[in-house]
Amino acid sequence: MRLRLRPRDDSYYEMFTDSANNLVIAARLLVELMSDGADREAITEKMRACEHAGDDATHAIMRRLNKGSAPPINREDIYQLASNLDDVMDSMEAAVDLIGLYGLERLPKGIIDQIEVLERAAELTAEAMPRLRHLDDLTRYWIEINQLENQADRIYRKLLARLFSGEYDALTVLKLKDVIEELENAADAFEHVANTVETIVVKNG
Amino acid sequence: MRLRLRPRDDSYYEMFTDSANNLVIAARLLVELMSDGADREAITEKMRACEHAGDDATHAIMRRLNKGSAPPINREDIYQLASNLDDVMDSMEAAVDLIGLYGLERLPKGIIDQIEVLERAAELTAEAMPRLRHLDDLTRYWIEINQLENQADRIYRKLLARLFSGEYDALTVLKLKDVIEELENAADAFEHVANTVETIVVKNG
Amino acid sequence: MRLRLRPRDDSYYEMFTDSANNLVIAARLLVELMSDGADREAITEKMRACEHAGDDATHAIMRRLNKGSAPPINREDIYQLASNLDDVMDSMEAAVDLIGLYGLERLPKGIIDQIEVLERAAELTAEAMPRLRHLDDLTRYWIEINQLENQADRIYRKLLARLFSGEYDALTVLKLKDVIEELENAADAFEHVANTVETIVVKNG
Repeated sequence: MRLRLRPRDDSYYEMFTDSANNLVIAARLLVELMSDGADREAITEKMRACEHAGDDATHAIMRRLNKGSAPPINREDIYQLASNLDDVMDSMEAAVDLIGLYGLERLPKGIIDQIEVLERAAELTAEAMPRLRHLDDLTRYWIEINQLENQADRIYRKLLARLFSGEYDALTVLKLKDVIEELENAADAFEHVANTVETIVVKNG
Repeated sequence: MRLRLRPRDDSYYEMFTDSANNLVIAARLLVELMSDGADREAITEKMRACEHAGDDATHAIMRRLNKGSAPPINREDIYQLASNLDDVMDSMEAAVDLIGLYGLERLPKGIIDQIEVLERAAELTAEAMPRLRHLDDLTRYWIEINQLENQADRIYRKLLARLFSGEYDALTVLKLKDVIEELENAADAFEHVANTVETIVVKNG
Repeated sequence: MRLRLRPRDDSYYEMFTDSANNLVIAARLLVELMSDGADREAITEKMRACEHAGDDATHAIMRRLNKGSAPPINREDIYQLASNLDDVMDSMEAAVDLIGLYGLERLPKGIIDQIEVLERAAELTAEAMPRLRHLDDLTRYWIEINQLENQADRIYRKLLARLFSGEYDALTVLKLKDVIEELENAADAFEHVANTVETIVVKNG
């Protein structure tokens, strides 16, 4: 797989779309990681490449902002949105990294539910970014992301209860808790993206 | 008990007051939870209702902002303040939820001290919100919330030391730590509310 | 050692520089703490004094903002920068406090690497603050802080793996994890300072 990002200079909207498409790739890597017989090392490598591609996209946005070309929307909001998208990537990458770092062989099945919510949130976000240009039909996106975040929250809490059910020793609980917390952070970060989009709509709508 | 919120359309200040009054109700539910023979299940239910009432209040504020009626203060600050108030509620609700989720029967007494600080902070916040209208006498509120946050911090650290004193096994430490951290988050979130209020005073004072 | 802060009224830039110089003192106290035969109690006391000096610096900035004298840069950005600098101090102080609170005698060597990164970040930040006046040569600072944060991240993750390598029991892992997380928070907080500086450059450059 070749990770590709085209931070073209002609539009912030396209840069945000690229950045969000990159999150879709990352979410799919998470799905892949959970499949039987997954090559975890290869996936961890791809995830790292994905994070670097995300960093490049963020820096391209920042560089363009710094050059002083007039952005179509408020500078601070562009900065905020780029940071929020970056935060999602960081959490997803951290989750994969921790799984390797802790040598976690067996992961509780419920993690798949967390990851599926992230995949859906990534897709919705990637679909919404091009609509920023005309502030078009973003209420539905915002509501759906909020619903997904609530769903992620319930899954996360169920997983927490599962971790403490007596099945795992304390050290394993600590390790698994770090992983599911990073995935929960990713879900929260998708909500922050949506909140920033809402702020942009409020200011420019 | 009937939870009631009146997000009337005539004023943001009243909506913020409603939202903060809801935090007073939530803080008192926490106090109730710690009393002997408390009906934990019933309190957890009421807390959830309280959180939903809080969500409704937040959305009422957001909807009014989106409608484009000219707000008396900066849009972003209204957005920020509504989010901050929402964060307090989320942390208090999460603490109660975790207690149930983890099946924690016995809670260390020091948690009562944490909760009393939250109750006082909620009351101060609810008293301050109506004064936002005339930016009236808010310095005292801000200073008191900062003092309460420092007090909460000391209580939190004492509780942490207690958790690790050898009385509890590792899994119980992990569970209790999550609960007292959420309560500490609530105290921090009250400080964020106060900081946003201060920002509003700085901009409009 | 006498901790000294001169929150002079004649310039925000000098107040920020004072605040950042205070972080250099705090970082050096962390280095001292890790040396053989360190007087931990005395260092914890000095760290607390350092935090109070930081609070005084922050409040001096806020008071001046509230007095309404026209700041050279955006009010909110001044507020943000003061808060970010304060966050760094809080995390460093919390790390030292937790070491005492938990009665941690033996600390893993890798913590020294974390602390050296913090010391370097503090020095870079203190050097950058006076350059804010003319928005002078801040790109290099911002890039270096980002590199240091990446380095801190790698050190942090290596320490995490070390904690879980089987050398420590679960309760000790929990305690040490809290300490290294606070140090990681301090590194993140330095990055937030740099991000706010970048925002200021973007807006005023």
